[in-house]
Amino acid sequence: MIGKTAGASAMYMAMSSLNQAHATTFKGKPKLEGDVKGASVLILGAGVAGLVAALELSRAGYKVQVLEYNNRVGGRSWTLRGGDSFTELGGATQNVGFAPGNYINPGPWRLPYDHKGMISYCNELGVALEPFMQVNTNALLHNTQAFGGKPIRYREIQADFMGHTSELLAKAVNKQALSDEVTKEDAEILLEALRDWGSLDKDLRYVKGPESSDRRGWAKNPGGGLSAYPEPSEPMKFSTVLQSHLWTGLSAGFGIERQSSIFQPVGGMDNVAKGFEKHVGQFVRFNSKVVSIKQDAKGVTATFEDTKTGQRGTASADYCLCTIPLSVLSQIDMNVGDKMANAIRAVPYEAGFKVGLEFKRRFWEQDDHIFGGISYTDLPITQISYPSSRYGSTGPATLLGGYTFGAYAYEFTSLPPAERVARAVEWGSKIHPQYKDEFLNGVAVGWHRVPWTQGCFGNWSPEARKEHYDNLCQIDGRILLAGEHASFIPAWQEGALTSSLDAIGRLHQRVVAG
Amino acid sequence: MIGKTAGASAMYMAMSSLNQAHATTFKGKPKLEGDVKGASVLILGAGVAGLVAALELSRAGYKVQVLEYNNRVGGRSWTLRGGDSFTELGGATQNVGFAPGNYINPGPWRLPYDHKGMISYCNELGVALEPFMQVNTNALLHNTQAFGGKPIRYREIQADFMGHTSELLAKAVNKQALSDEVTKEDAEILLEALRDWGSLDKDLRYVKGPESSDRRGWAKNPGGGLSAYPEPSEPMKFSTVLQSHLWTGLSAGFGIERQSSIFQPVGGMDNVAKGFEKHVGQFVRFNSKVVSIKQDAKGVTATFEDTKTGQRGTASADYCLCTIPLSVLSQIDMNVGDKMANAIRAVPYEAGFKVGLEFKRRFWEQDDHIFGGISYTDLPITQISYPSSRYGSTGPATLLGGYTFGAYAYEFTSLPPAERVARAVEWGSKIHPQYKDEFLNGVAVGWHRVPWTQGCFGNWSPEARKEHYDNLCQIDGRILLAGEHASFIPAWQEGALTSSLDAIGRLHQRVVAG
Repeated sequence: MIGKTAGASAMYMAMSSLNQAHATTFKGKPKLEGDVKGASVLILGAGVAGLVAALELSRAGYKVQVLEYNNRVGGRSWTLRGGDSFTELGGATQNVGFAPGNYINPGPWRLPYDHKGMISYCNELGVALEPFMQVNTNALLHNTQAFGGKPIRYREIQADFMGHTSELLAKAVNKQALSDEVTKEDAEILLEALRDWGSLDKDLRYVKGPESSDRRGWAKNPGGGLSAYPEPSEPMKFSTVLQSHLWTGLSAGFGIERQSSIFQPVGGMDNVAKGFEKHVGQFVRFNSKVVSIKQDAKGVTATFEDTKTGQRGTASADYCLCTIPLSVLSQIDMNVGDKMANAIRAVPYEAGFKVGLEFKRRFWEQDDHIFGGISYTDLPITQISYPSSRYGSTGPATLLGGYTFGAYAYEFTSLPPAERVARAVEWGSKIHPQYKDEFLNGVAVGWHRVPWTQGCFGNWSPEARKEHYDNLCQIDGRILLAGEHASFIPAWQEGALTSSLDAIGRLHQRVVAG
Repeated sequence: MIGKTAGASAMYMAMSSLNQAHATTFKGKPKLEGDVKGASVLILGAGVAGLVAALELSRAGYKVQVLEYNNRVGGRSWTLRGGDSFTELGGATQNVGFAPGNYINPGPWRLPYDHKGMISYCNELGVALEPFMQVNTNALLHNTQAFGGKPIRYREIQADFMGHTSELLAKAVNKQALSDEVTKEDAEILLEALRDWGSLDKDLRYVKGPESSDRRGWAKNPGGGLSAYPEPSEPMKFSTVLQSHLWTGLSAGFGIERQSSIFQPVGGMDNVAKGFEKHVGQFVRFNSKVVSIKQDAKGVTATFEDTKTGQRGTASADYCLCTIPLSVLSQIDMNVGDKMANAIRAVPYEAGFKVGLEFKRRFWEQDDHIFGGISYTDLPITQISYPSSRYGSTGPATLLGGYTFGAYAYEFTSLPPAERVARAVEWGSKIHPQYKDEFLNGVAVGWHRVPWTQGCFGNWSPEARKEHYDNLCQIDGRILLAGEHASFIPAWQEGALTSSLDAIGRLHQRVVAG
């Protein structure tokens, strides 16, 4: 696997390809007014899409029941803590050994401020939020091919990139090279702006001095008393910055879904689902694996298998909102029209991989002064994300020791769990040598081996979306679909939530009108 | 006052002038080893400088006593909550009306990760920290002279500035205008980097489309279901961005003391001082206004007046560590040599002003989706900082409704407190119209009217620092000084802390050697 290491650039490109669509159409809670005439809805899946539908439909007067494969709500909105156990396809079981209070979220882990639906429901449901530290300028950028494999602080690369590009643009302006692009009046303002933006000196140069050290850090920090005199640091040559390719790690926090402010639920992402569960838990049948979905003129019947007893049962309702991932749904017998059936088969699922590691202490804080945030690397682990909670605490702590998609995710997933963890520790030790001494235990989720989703999220191609997206979302008889796969915000809970509200809004219009 | 409004640029320049020196020389706790021979130290002032000295000197075996003007520890590290009351020079008393749990910090309010001394003591003393939201891309930039006075989201100005400057630099590179600065090989990498940095399209242009909307936000956000299709937003012309001067607000979070990660103590800054107090509270005599400091060959004696009873008393010790602000110390009778005496008189104190406002609800979150962070304006309030805690909570909440230095701070301070608050509400309503309906009450601190400091912080000129700084820090007989004024980190607690550790380290060397 190490031999297949791609360049940092390709790696970061792959990551930021997830960044394609954003934000939300959420405009407030749905108003499902009018007489629902005793209508019933069977919801398949108790993830975020299913839960929000159960909440709003039951509030509107619908009879609601939910079938859920797992023995818990949340679906991919999942948190692993000490004592948890899970078995993947192939039969390998992992028992999580984390100390009390430690956890990782194998699925979604962030709530951008602009995901207004999720934030709004968290507020309403009393789910406490805390800032997720997305960008930490003291975190590390690492490329095995640059600086002899030594990681560099984010702030040094960023400051030097901003400083050098600002100096170059100022030079171009002063050479009149851009006089057909920028008026003389604007050029004067631009030079002033570049000095501020790039922290240039009075001569518009990015050089060793207080201006550059203010951004990149000092060689000797200022302090107090007679030992207080600061010494500025030496900026890198621009050529060094460019050729290191570490600039590819700068933009990871720039997209609107990574911009500050961004949050996480205190204590684990599954607290969102648990917030919904307080209101709709009574409607959920757990351990229920759906094996067929049949509709006729009168209603919809799902047949399920109890995963504990092996016994089969059925559940029926006037309508069915199905939130089962397309990767699984495409294997289930269901009588819908060709358009929806073809749409369900049109979406491949992206490979995703996360590994959580527990260490004896927060050496990243205590030794390296990294409090939250993410370090990026061209190694297959791609990133290390430090916990955004309980800063400064002592005792064992967990971090996200690898999070990757595509080829690296497939390769990790193909390994036995213990080997995945061992490799994450080995690679992480190239960035934090303390890994070897401080490691306690780990847990690794390869989403293609998770039985109830068999992939991470619906990876729409532009062509497939053009041909099939609307067909996927249209009501087929008495069946309609929701989930992140039925949205323009793939992989995000906001997509699941807004797709579900959109679907039940359309269903409700039909029920009230019909 | 409104008539005197300076341009946004001048305002932000004034703010960022505070940004001159950074970080810390802190390298871990002092090792005060060896026999202190029963030596005693009188500490004047129970702010951060005095408290850390009391802690470390008492641990090293010194006899310690502390005289403090106020009836609490912390000094300028101060938190105002409902029920608090204080009287300023001139006699005006303010009674704080905030609801339980609400507060403002009139003095220091942030703990940058790079202030390693402060962070380290917080961790040791069990002071819980939470992220301070410095940069929030959904907060506002406001210039009364631009966009008809309408505030603009930070992210739109930043995205458009980054996009347009990146496009311009790419054009200059492609015109060969910089071929004497950048090699052909580096130029190719630079173009790739500019595409990533500026979110340019495939033709290296910053235009309406998914790339720019990913940074600046969408006209219609992507969502789920059939209402999901996103619509990109239209970037501003670069000339519009430049001439708005709102770019001056972008860099406020770029200096190393504002970079992520940055923290605040949960519940108020005075929890740091209270953390020290648990260990050294027994040494502190409150309500003790020092009126003279006299040294001779045998020791130092301070005479103080009890501010409650008016009675005078004395305290004596072998040595004296004086942390009284120079603005006050220069008015106290003290027999030190000319060098230190001249240094004490050489440092004018900067004017500083903060106003805390309480509102009925978090309309900035509920209506405007601003969760923490800072909006900047060219109005005299300069900035509005939203609370970095209890996101999403209901009920009354406080924000920092103005924070300014220099001329605006003098002008605010010259007004009666109620008028300061009223003007902050009036100006703030230009940015958030909800102010008028939602306002409950406020409190306003003009630091030049605070009796025990009479100014905000020591504002060293480069010339004064060259002539007097070392003389201020040298031990004079049995007296030595500490505080932010005796540091290269003016206005920051880290300066006070590191100056104190430096001072007691030198004192200890003399005691052990002597």
